[in-house]
Amino acid sequence: MRALRWDGSRLELVRGLPEVATGPGDALVRVRLAGICRTDLEICRGYLGFRGTPGHEWVGEVVRAPDTGLVGRRVVGEINFGCGACPACRDGLARHCPVRRVQGIAGADGAFAELLAVPIGVLHPVPDAVSDATAVFAEPVAAAFEILEQLGDVAGRSAVVLGDGKLGLLVAQVLATAGATVRLAGRHREKLAIAEQLGVPTGEPAPGADLVVDATGSPAALAQALALVRPRGTVVLKTTVAAHHQLDLAPAVINEVTIVGSRCGPFAPALAALAAGRVRVGPLVEARYPLDDGVAAFAHAARPGALKVLIDPGA
Amino acid sequence: MRALRWDGSRLELVRGLPEVATGPGDALVRVRLAGICRTDLEICRGYLGFRGTPGHEWVGEVVRAPDTGLVGRRVVGEINFGCGACPACRDGLARHCPVRRVQGIAGADGAFAELLAVPIGVLHPVPDAVSDATAVFAEPVAAAFEILEQLGDVAGRSAVVLGDGKLGLLVAQVLATAGATVRLAGRHREKLAIAEQLGVPTGEPAPGADLVVDATGSPAALAQALALVRPRGTVVLKTTVAAHHQLDLAPAVINEVTIVGSRCGPFAPALAALAAGRVRVGPLVEARYPLDDGVAAFAHAARPGALKVLIDPGA
Repeated sequence: MRALRWDGSRLELVRGLPEVATGPGDALVRVRLAGICRTDLEICRGYLGFRGTPGHEWVGEVVRAPDTGLVGRRVVGEINFGCGACPACRDGLARHCPVRRVQGIAGADGAFAELLAVPIGVLHPVPDAVSDATAVFAEPVAAAFEILEQLGDVAGRSAVVLGDGKLGLLVAQVLATAGATVRLAGRHREKLAIAEQLGVPTGEPAPGADLVVDATGSPAALAQALALVRPRGTVVLKTTVAAHHQLDLAPAVINEVTIVGSRCGPFAPALAALAAGRVRVGPLVEARYPLDDGVAAFAHAARPGALKVLIDPGA
Repeated sequence: MRALRWDGSRLELVRGLPEVATGPGDALVRVRLAGICRTDLEICRGYLGFRGTPGHEWVGEVVRAPDTGLVGRRVVGEINFGCGACPACRDGLARHCPVRRVQGIAGADGAFAELLAVPIGVLHPVPDAVSDATAVFAEPVAAAFEILEQLGDVAGRSAVVLGDGKLGLLVAQVLATAGATVRLAGRHREKLAIAEQLGVPTGEPAPGADLVVDATGSPAALAQALALVRPRGTVVLKTTVAAHHQLDLAPAVINEVTIVGSRCGPFAPALAALAAGRVRVGPLVEARYPLDDGVAAFAHAARPGALKVLIDPGA
């Protein structure tokens, strides 16, 4: 099979690879569409020391599975593969299993390939009404829903989303569906126009917000978030890019702010919101490349301000 | 009257000052005992630009008050004086009133003086069973109880307190009274001995704690706290000292840690715990100086590793 491989110094399309290895609880999935995420770009700069096939945002069709009811189904999949036995896994938090593998990020090959091995327990069938180009956003939309899982009810709360990139546009929509009064702050006129098109108000945020979500991808934004949030308010950090940064947390202590780190999230509400059109992703797609042009797709995704770039192994 | 005055460059005892000015809702209080806090030392290094009489940990006797029932009563007082009219004050959060004065810290003279002006609304009578040398800890014990006010029930949770100074010793006791399994980590053998004497287990903490409280006073401790807390656990920051610091918050995001800034707290549970002996402060007192020797008292309190130094205006 063909796959985009990162060997630690170079990303390249490799042909003639053996079919991906599956374990006893794995499904074999034919990838229909995969999205390039900021984390993929970081991996190709050395993040986490990953070697192999990146890609963790995908929609595919089950080719083979221990549960035969799955064969032929269109599915998406959660990306953290827990051990199933540790306290975190037993508590339903496989996302925090200390020995977890993470698809395309740590210990498991990912979706920029024709075929993919995925434990059946993390698969979610995709409703017929949801197109591939929408379903491929299930993972980042789930990451946005993680904020609701962590904070609970946000209805009626004032929220500022910092960052007009893909994640910011998704987070703003998810908070709005939950009844928060959202304002998106960003610096890219064309992305702010997309936000408005998606029904998300934009503009310079006023201080005093109940909730500020940092979806900028830059550790520098925390200081801005702390300046915007009200005393006893909440700041959600969605920036996993590792970086030591000069930071003064005294404002967080003086104003008793709660800072919540937030990562991967639940797929079920994400798929439901995509199916119902409560979260819209169409305007977020910037380009679509065949797998053979995957290296060019990565170069495109790395352009400053790029929106979602998709890779289609079937094209 | 006599008071210790900080003029922006020098701390000195000034005699022959006029009686402190009281507003219509203020009580005039004769200070019986006052404690030097780390914040007082920071103020005398320029923190917050305060000018005047520092001191916000005190016990005193009401000399004059609009509510005559208070005259002659032994009292302690909360240190944040809200405007009483803004949304924060109306929500019972005068501690976060945006135009608040803070006793001995911002806009209001403090307790290293013979007399003190305090709004009657922040006063709490001291039970007879509580000595002056115990009651003077009401403010820092309230700051420790703030953690319970913010986090709710901590019973059965594993907690690590970083820092064996005064605040760490109080926080560890408060968490233990609430049913947490506490371990105190510090580097001063004599203070760890005090912790053991107070019934607080000490020693190298193991990773995986539900809760880690940074009471070190050093912004560097956050990285250690993030390494000790379990995924989805909570880190409480009690360090208000302003300092830009190199910090990598990626571990907080990856492990979805909640970081809670925590400052001043509720006096009622603090006084109750001191009265019942559930929080003990006797071993925390290192020295006691008359007000006339206040400058020497500050020098003593600034020694590395010093415990609580008290100032007695009546001595």
